[in-house]
Amino acid sequence: MTQPQSRMRREILEIPQVVERLLQEGALPAKDAAKAIKQGGARFGVTVARGSSDHVCTYLKYVSELLLGLPVASIGPSVASVYKAPLLLDGAFCLSVSQSGQSPDIVAMARAAAEGGAVTVALTNDVASPLSGVSAHTLDIHAGPELSVAATKTFVASAVAGLRLLAEIKGDQELLGALHRLPGDLEKAAALNWPEVRAALTTQTSLFTLGRGPSWAMSNEAALKFKETCQLHAESYSSAEVLHGPVSIVGARFPVLAMAAGDAAEEGLADVAGQMAAKGAEVFITSSRAKAATRLEHVRTSHPLCDPIALIVSFYAMVEQLAQERGIDPDTPRHLNKVTQTT
Amino acid sequence: MTQPQSRMRREILEIPQVVERLLQEGALPAKDAAKAIKQGGARFGVTVARGSSDHVCTYLKYVSELLLGLPVASIGPSVASVYKAPLLLDGAFCLSVSQSGQSPDIVAMARAAAEGGAVTVALTNDVASPLSGVSAHTLDIHAGPELSVAATKTFVASAVAGLRLLAEIKGDQELLGALHRLPGDLEKAAALNWPEVRAALTTQTSLFTLGRGPSWAMSNEAALKFKETCQLHAESYSSAEVLHGPVSIVGARFPVLAMAAGDAAEEGLADVAGQMAAKGAEVFITSSRAKAATRLEHVRTSHPLCDPIALIVSFYAMVEQLAQERGIDPDTPRHLNKVTQTT
Repeated sequence: MTQPQSRMRREILEIPQVVERLLQEGALPAKDAAKAIKQGGARFGVTVARGSSDHVCTYLKYVSELLLGLPVASIGPSVASVYKAPLLLDGAFCLSVSQSGQSPDIVAMARAAAEGGAVTVALTNDVASPLSGVSAHTLDIHAGPELSVAATKTFVASAVAGLRLLAEIKGDQELLGALHRLPGDLEKAAALNWPEVRAALTTQTSLFTLGRGPSWAMSNEAALKFKETCQLHAESYSSAEVLHGPVSIVGARFPVLAMAAGDAAEEGLADVAGQMAAKGAEVFITSSRAKAATRLEHVRTSHPLCDPIALIVSFYAMVEQLAQERGIDPDTPRHLNKVTQTT
Repeated sequence: MTQPQSRMRREILEIPQVVERLLQEGALPAKDAAKAIKQGGARFGVTVARGSSDHVCTYLKYVSELLLGLPVASIGPSVASVYKAPLLLDGAFCLSVSQSGQSPDIVAMARAAAEGGAVTVALTNDVASPLSGVSAHTLDIHAGPELSVAATKTFVASAVAGLRLLAEIKGDQELLGALHRLPGDLEKAAALNWPEVRAALTTQTSLFTLGRGPSWAMSNEAALKFKETCQLHAESYSSAEVLHGPVSIVGARFPVLAMAAGDAAEEGLADVAGQMAAKGAEVFITSSRAKAATRLEHVRTSHPLCDPIALIVSFYAMVEQLAQERGIDPDTPRHLNKVTQTT
């Protein structure tokens, strides 16, 4: 390949070292925030974010629910910024996720969450940002400057920072140990690039991505990146939702990418993948349990909750290459700027 | 038109009388459930649903947050049915929405919510269903048999039943009064059918639907119905999200349908509609405040929180006609059955 390396590709390849640095440097703030959340009562969580960062929150929601038993509500920033409706958040923790920490509506909602009584934690790449300023705790994601418009390393770093925070709340040594093995896992994950998927997408304009539980968050992120970098209309569904209506648009050769982690949902996801294949779809899945669907190479980590992170890294490596093959510069997506300011 | 009337169309036209009946017959159970929720502490809510019913829950989430200040978390049924993870729901209320009340994963999650300490309320069309059996309270949506695969009258009836419940918790007489004027509003809404939108969709395969706040829930429902009944790949976004990435797939004449209610978000939604039009999209909006986008006829109710319900009724009338025009029988969507049983 003689293509010059895109910024997006360079940043994907940086992911293992970003996670390594975050794990080394972010320990104390995570412990402090975890302690404050436990002292605050920790009855439930809320999250505040947009775009890719909101997919990080969906992932963290499942982690909180599965690991801690604490339900997490995603709050639309409009509740504060547009509707000016105060929320009652006594006993709640609030996670705000934003690479830049700049968008006025995210900052307004994080401020309102603090006023409502929540223990607020900002996950951001800029500890001097307005979001950090209105939050009681800040977790620096230590990702370094992200020059690509499409977020990759900051997505992964935010997910890892949040996962560590929740593991600290639980005091889960097994999960914390698995996190420390993650950089090596992600090195391997970044080397995959799913040529079968790329080949299937050369002539298509629409597709579905699927997941279930924590891996559904990665399916959401994958669908957004397909749109952003490849101008493909990908839409994400839970494998449990896709058979309620959405399947109607599935005709012959309709592509489906199922992001399966090595967890309790894997078998069911493989089953739905098979059902979609039986309807004529061209289905790919990151699972060796699939029968009718095409099995993709994938990396399993040392904990089921870390698996989704490895999946998205392999996806990023694939989608960057797909964009190049479709003749699109992944660094300059149509109509987009790096920092979106929403009021 | 000499086309025979579809079941879907007959059920759309029934909506005003279904809502009238629900308002007359469902008052006492709503008051009882509201009382139990208040006695339970009412610190936050959780919802359990799939498909169209999950869009009802998104609507009710905004109503709870804007009216009561209580955050609401949508819980993936897999938390109970697949991951067997117990949630801590002391002081929470749980709304489960299912027309049939049959799907095993919804029933399992509602049972787990009760075990976790939540005050559980089922909103269903079958008071003898398993979902009703595992819930402390049941609100009968009084919709009568729904024969069309695509839910319409049960969607509206569930939304109205939930809205009344939340209005009772607040003791909001203004909103309760507006609800009683809703059947007349919905009669007018069902008479609209947006010929401009139908004309724009004859040759397209992809589109976006937009909303913000409570009307975003209706945008979600619209996108699902476009897929289900018209085989169009419609995807729903918050108007605040669409400029973070998804806008990349918007080329010339890309259709966008913005569902604006007469609330604090209307101005901002009209502004984003204009920005999408400036990028070459063909944008329609239910607002008279739009400049660049095409204004659609719409019905405003006597309360901003009721407006989204009128919007979806006009949408249903339009999409049923669009399906017919595309040569698709809206009563028999490809690959679908009426009751989806997910484990």
